[in-house]
Amino acid sequence: MFHTDVCDLLGIEYPIILGGMVWIGKADLAAAVSEAGGLGLLGAGGMTIEEIHSECSLVKEKTSKPFGVNLPMIRPDISEMIDASIESGASVVVTSSGNPKSFTRVIKERGCAVMHVVPSVSYALKCVEAGVDIIIAEGIEAGGHDGFDEITTMALIPQVVDAVDVPVIAAGGIADGRGFVAALSLGAKGVQLGTRFVATYESAAHPRFKDAILQLPDNGTTITGRTTIGPTRSMKNTLTQKIQEAERQGASAQELFDLIGEGRSAMASIEGDIEEGSAYCGQIGGMIRELKSVSDVFDEILAQARDTITQIRHFSEL
Amino acid sequence: MFHTDVCDLLGIEYPIILGGMVWIGKADLAAAVSEAGGLGLLGAGGMTIEEIHSECSLVKEKTSKPFGVNLPMIRPDISEMIDASIESGASVVVTSSGNPKSFTRVIKERGCAVMHVVPSVSYALKCVEAGVDIIIAEGIEAGGHDGFDEITTMALIPQVVDAVDVPVIAAGGIADGRGFVAALSLGAKGVQLGTRFVATYESAAHPRFKDAILQLPDNGTTITGRTTIGPTRSMKNTLTQKIQEAERQGASAQELFDLIGEGRSAMASIEGDIEEGSAYCGQIGGMIRELKSVSDVFDEILAQARDTITQIRHFSEL
Repeated sequence: MFHTDVCDLLGIEYPIILGGMVWIGKADLAAAVSEAGGLGLLGAGGMTIEEIHSECSLVKEKTSKPFGVNLPMIRPDISEMIDASIESGASVVVTSSGNPKSFTRVIKERGCAVMHVVPSVSYALKCVEAGVDIIIAEGIEAGGHDGFDEITTMALIPQVVDAVDVPVIAAGGIADGRGFVAALSLGAKGVQLGTRFVATYESAAHPRFKDAILQLPDNGTTITGRTTIGPTRSMKNTLTQKIQEAERQGASAQELFDLIGEGRSAMASIEGDIEEGSAYCGQIGGMIRELKSVSDVFDEILAQARDTITQIRHFSEL
Repeated sequence: MFHTDVCDLLGIEYPIILGGMVWIGKADLAAAVSEAGGLGLLGAGGMTIEEIHSECSLVKEKTSKPFGVNLPMIRPDISEMIDASIESGASVVVTSSGNPKSFTRVIKERGCAVMHVVPSVSYALKCVEAGVDIIIAEGIEAGGHDGFDEITTMALIPQVVDAVDVPVIAAGGIADGRGFVAALSLGAKGVQLGTRFVATYESAAHPRFKDAILQLPDNGTTITGRTTIGPTRSMKNTLTQKIQEAERQGASAQELFDLIGEGRSAMASIEGDIEEGSAYCGQIGGMIRELKSVSDVFDEILAQARDTITQIRHFSEL
């Protein structure tokens, strides 16, 4: 069921990928997603080299299925991060926040599949040139760091699919079986979900952060950083109001960095300060109403996807 | 094929609606869409009462099938617009830019179906309360006037579908059979297309405007009016640069209105000044590469939708 090229390339059962999420994407969550038949990803952005080793080991204790890591190319110790991940058993590397050319060849030579997250067609073409195996095309509805062009998933996926000859995974705005089938309809060969997996028992997010997702209205997220430091989607809160007010006053990138300071993402996601932290969250958070286990999330996505396809077939046969 | 509740309610064959487009949505285009089996809509926002009469008559000369009008509720002569449209044979009224409560009952009592365009769940709930027959939920990727909440089609449609018990039509980011099937997957019972129909032989748009769509990259549109006067999506050009620069300087709503002045939309869409006019255009314009007849657009959407469903079925049966 729902077997695509992506499943063959990654050695997984369902083309459903855990978004690489700093702080939240730890071993319990990554292992649960892999064990359910998807691809679990450790969000290694905030991990030390030792933590990468220990988190990979923890995943391997919990599942014998393939898992991956998300590595931000801007980390100064990126080469060590790659070594640690591969030595500790990750078979997929998602390269983010940087040029896919830098490390794709090196990682592939060591037998790992490489995926790269892109917000537009031009970046997707750079990935193909770099030899990336799978492109994750992410729309502006996604939580966390988004592209300056602010292209939505609905508009982005078919344009990227038309432009490249490698499989495309859709990210942004997907949290259930309807979104999964919609993404496949647009030409994607799989989906990446972030916010839906934050609101699971297995995620390392603080209970207050999970609750905030369950309470979120459709318009509960906003973009900051649009003018200078890069668009980031998070829950509307005291911090986003401060940042947006500074932006309206014409704050420079440095002034915004100074205002925001360090550690805001951990403050929201693991310390639970939803008002003063950066509570990265996708727009589809407004649809998520129940905390579930990862295995239930998978069961429900797959069941709803089957129902959706039955319904669509019905429309096309009347 | 593709028959939904929306078809029954509107008396049409395929649940594909022409977006109500000022200047561009004239009789030739509306009649061609209705004749192809969808619902043609006259974009009456810029029409006098006499023009509404004459355009409706022209549509009726070209097709015997149902057609509608898009009427902005903010026009001071809105009552006369409604009278003129219904007397001249429109059987569907799309009410936009205003409260659906004002005129829904009046229009329905005269035997017309009422659709209203919304950008969020809270507005959709207001429509249900007002007795609107069909809700058109429009994502931020759509061209022209968008909602302040900037919710994308992918995130918006399932949330609106879950919130209301009337049929929902998806708008924003849809221009082919893939987008049509994706929208149905998300729970919509139909789609509304604007930009795709602008780039047809039958549309009243200036040839330079149509050409500009065919040349558009994926990131070729932008939003102005975000800070004060209301988000509007159009092609990036000299005018959007000027507006955005004024916005960065903190311009007030009045200063922006003064800067923009009157007639910018007609300047782009029918006079062909793509640089100084407001060239309303959806993000999916980046995917549109060929000028076609409306009938070819329909044939291709339906054929591609069938292929897409076959492909999706295949995924679910492996």
